Amino acid sequence: MDKVIKVGIVGMGVVGTGVAKILLHQGSLLTERTGRQFQLKTVVDLDWERDRDIDLSGVATTTDFNALLSDPEIEIIVETVGGIEPAYSMVRQALAKGKYVVTANKALIALKGQALFKEAQEHGVDLRFEASVGGGIPIIKSLREGLVANRIKNIYGIINGTSNYILTRMHQEGLDFATALQEAQAKGFAEADPTLDVGGGDAAHKLTILASLAAGGFVDFQAIPVEGITELTTLDINFAKNFGYVIKLLAVCRFNGKLDLRVHPTLVPGDHLLAAVNNELNAIFVTGDYVGDTMFYGPGAGQAPTASAIVSDLVDLAHGIGTERETAAAPIINPEKEVPLFSLEEVTNRFYLRLFTMDQPGILAQIAGVLAKYGISISSVVQLETHGTENYVPIVLLTHEASEKAMCNALAEIKKFSFVRPDILRLRLFK
Amino acid sequence: MDKVIKVGIVGMGVVGTGVAKILLHQGSLLTERTGRQFQLKTVVDLDWERDRDIDLSGVATTTDFNALLSDPEIEIIVETVGGIEPAYSMVRQALAKGKYVVTANKALIALKGQALFKEAQEHGVDLRFEASVGGGIPIIKSLREGLVANRIKNIYGIINGTSNYILTRMHQEGLDFATALQEAQAKGFAEADPTLDVGGGDAAHKLTILASLAAGGFVDFQAIPVEGITELTTLDINFAKNFGYVIKLLAVCRFNGKLDLRVHPTLVPGDHLLAAVNNELNAIFVTGDYVGDTMFYGPGAGQAPTASAIVSDLVDLAHGIGTERETAAAPIINPEKEVPLFSLEEVTNRFYLRLFTMDQPGILAQIAGVLAKYGISISSVVQLETHGTENYVPIVLLTHEASEKAMCNALAEIKKFSFVRPDILRLRLFK
Repeated sequence: MDKVIKVGIVGMGVVGTGVAKILLHQGSLLTERTGRQFQLKTVVDLDWERDRDIDLSGVATTTDFNALLSDPEIEIIVETVGGIEPAYSMVRQALAKGKYVVTANKALIALKGQALFKEAQEHGVDLRFEASVGGGIPIIKSLREGLVANRIKNIYGIINGTSNYILTRMHQEGLDFATALQEAQAKGFAEADPTLDVGGGDAAHKLTILASLAAGGFVDFQAIPVEGITELTTLDINFAKNFGYVIKLLAVCRFNGKLDLRVHPTLVPGDHLLAAVNNELNAIFVTGDYVGDTMFYGPGAGQAPTASAIVSDLVDLAHGIGTERETAAAPIINPEKEVPLFSLEEVTNRFYLRLFTMDQPGILAQIAGVLAKYGISISSVVQLETHGTENYVPIVLLTHEASEKAMCNALAEIKKFSFVRPDILRLRLFK
Repeated sequence: MDKVIKVGIVGMGVVGTGVAKILLHQGSLLTERTGRQFQLKTVVDLDWERDRDIDLSGVATTTDFNALLSDPEIEIIVETVGGIEPAYSMVRQALAKGKYVVTANKALIALKGQALFKEAQEHGVDLRFEASVGGGIPIIKSLREGLVANRIKNIYGIINGTSNYILTRMHQEGLDFATALQEAQAKGFAEADPTLDVGGGDAAHKLTILASLAAGGFVDFQAIPVEGITELTTLDINFAKNFGYVIKLLAVCRFNGKLDLRVHPTLVPGDHLLAAVNNELNAIFVTGDYVGDTMFYGPGAGQAPTASAIVSDLVDLAHGIGTERETAAAPIINPEKEVPLFSLEEVTNRFYLRLFTMDQPGILAQIAGVLAKYGISISSVVQLETHGTENYVPIVLLTHEASEKAMCNALAEIKKFSFVRPDILRLRLFK
């Protein structure tokens, strides 16, 4: 007789409904593979008018979250509400009641993970979050378990599908940012308010989670420098292409004593595998001290992929429930461990600079002079010929490795030149 | 107090030594992450003269495998002997003694997995084999656990590093097969006898394991059609390139009622992510019914990556030891389950044909006529102009989808033409 695991879901939006679909439609497969029956007992949502394209007969539907909390038969609660509140209160209450929780909520883990993992530890339960990064890609499991023997040296993630879709369309079709964004919105890859995606905030949430796993302690989301893709023009895409690069929004985590974390558009060499990750797809490139370079690729969002990840968490929890098996999460992210971060100023990078200047003699010399003054060495420069119709001409420079602080000071000085337009773009090269 | 797990290794070659290095050098990290201390107690090898670049003080070294079998303290045995015997007997004995076993031995799992998993089930222990496919890539864990909610629709693996290195060098540098093979041997990516690698047998072992996991029952290694890369010439690489393809040795697993399994060189579209997997690296592209397309990339061999995978198995087992946790492997590959396979004749493919013919009028018409007779439709053809110095000129054809049986019959007929040289090459296109 297979053990029955009773599950509740709070938040029957796209993702919650996807989880219900798998539990209802893929049940015999799950039982064959795991020796467990997953019974979806109760689902909670405020809106029961919406058509969800799912037959919930046999499942209790309610608007009251307490129906999950107060039901001693429900051992695992899936939180697919999203956002911080009321999700945070719900997850805390569930953990405090001794329920196992699975969430896809990246903002919740990134911002409140420390408190939630303490809560889980105190009550001897586990909180799982595979779907919070990389959608259907089993990246959390791979980092925690598959690469458990490794100190992680660095992580480079294309972990925002919206931005990657926009950049791919800009790169491959020559679209400008606004047109590519509209297209992403029309295809359902971007929200009406795309700020969190194209501004880099969503990627920073996910980077917080990946870096915390790699470091073994929670990192401070607020301390991560974040730049989005909104300032990129087709000109930049084309210059990058001509230099042999593809611009990707990368979440970067590098260990070198302290942690160097950031999210920014990055010039990735055209022959790097990350450069071939296109459209709305995600990929996480991870280097471990024993395993070397690995990459995990797949859909970073969407109903079915996200639900696939959530159900893998359910299965893992189900294996442990009713046994003395210790939960794996607690020791792997220790809520008490301090993780020191570099400030951005402490790190070095290679830079891409794009400036518009008036078409006068001696300008390049003055700009190069400022860079030299701060010890920044130029590796390539392109200044396009003007045809007399435009007031400003673009100059693009690639630099050798230089400190962020030096670059910051140099740019402040360059901005003072009256012949330079204020919209200077500074990007970083993959390293 | 952390629980101590005592481990023995049999086979202190490259991989076994790598495992010992991780257990000895990465011990505090493993304990921090897992709450377990892994103590390497005893290592077995016949040769204790060799320098292994490791300090084994504190570890018992012996030539007698019984030292592991008869030691009740040793709970997990790592088998890194390789090959079928004596590894098979050793693993059986270990399982029969109630020991957990971790192996990197793909031939052993592919050929003897069914018997070994029955043995493990009978004795309530577990046999793990993460390192048997894809070296350091956590592909076994990802298939079994990460994608547990999915019926697997297909798997495409670049899972022989030697072949991929050779093909990359042929593609990128224009080397011929023999030169690229010599280079691979000089770099340690190919054995003195490379037959198992370049002939496709090694990839077929690994495909057997991946397909068995995906199907939930053991597939018959002997039934897999296998073609290697030894017949490929630079001409073929270049024709493929001009058509927009890269030739990769792919292990293919497609589900469509029955299982379609094969290993052969394949024309992969140049913009597919698998086409960007170069040198000795491996990648496994997996499509699940919920998750969609995913890919797992990394080093397929080598001391440190393979040891990384073995230690992840050790950690998984250590979590279960001493608890009532059921082993996950047994239900996921059911040794009793029959897995029906397609014969190659039942499947359809697109084909690449390369023939050398005498330079006479009407030849292409006759070849095309035979293909048409068998219902095979041509999608592209290239016949290069001759310059009078060569007796034979190459003709290359790409076909639309056609049955393997029809192609087989057509080729038998084409071979009878006196104007066709016998060395016809037939490749398949990615689908």
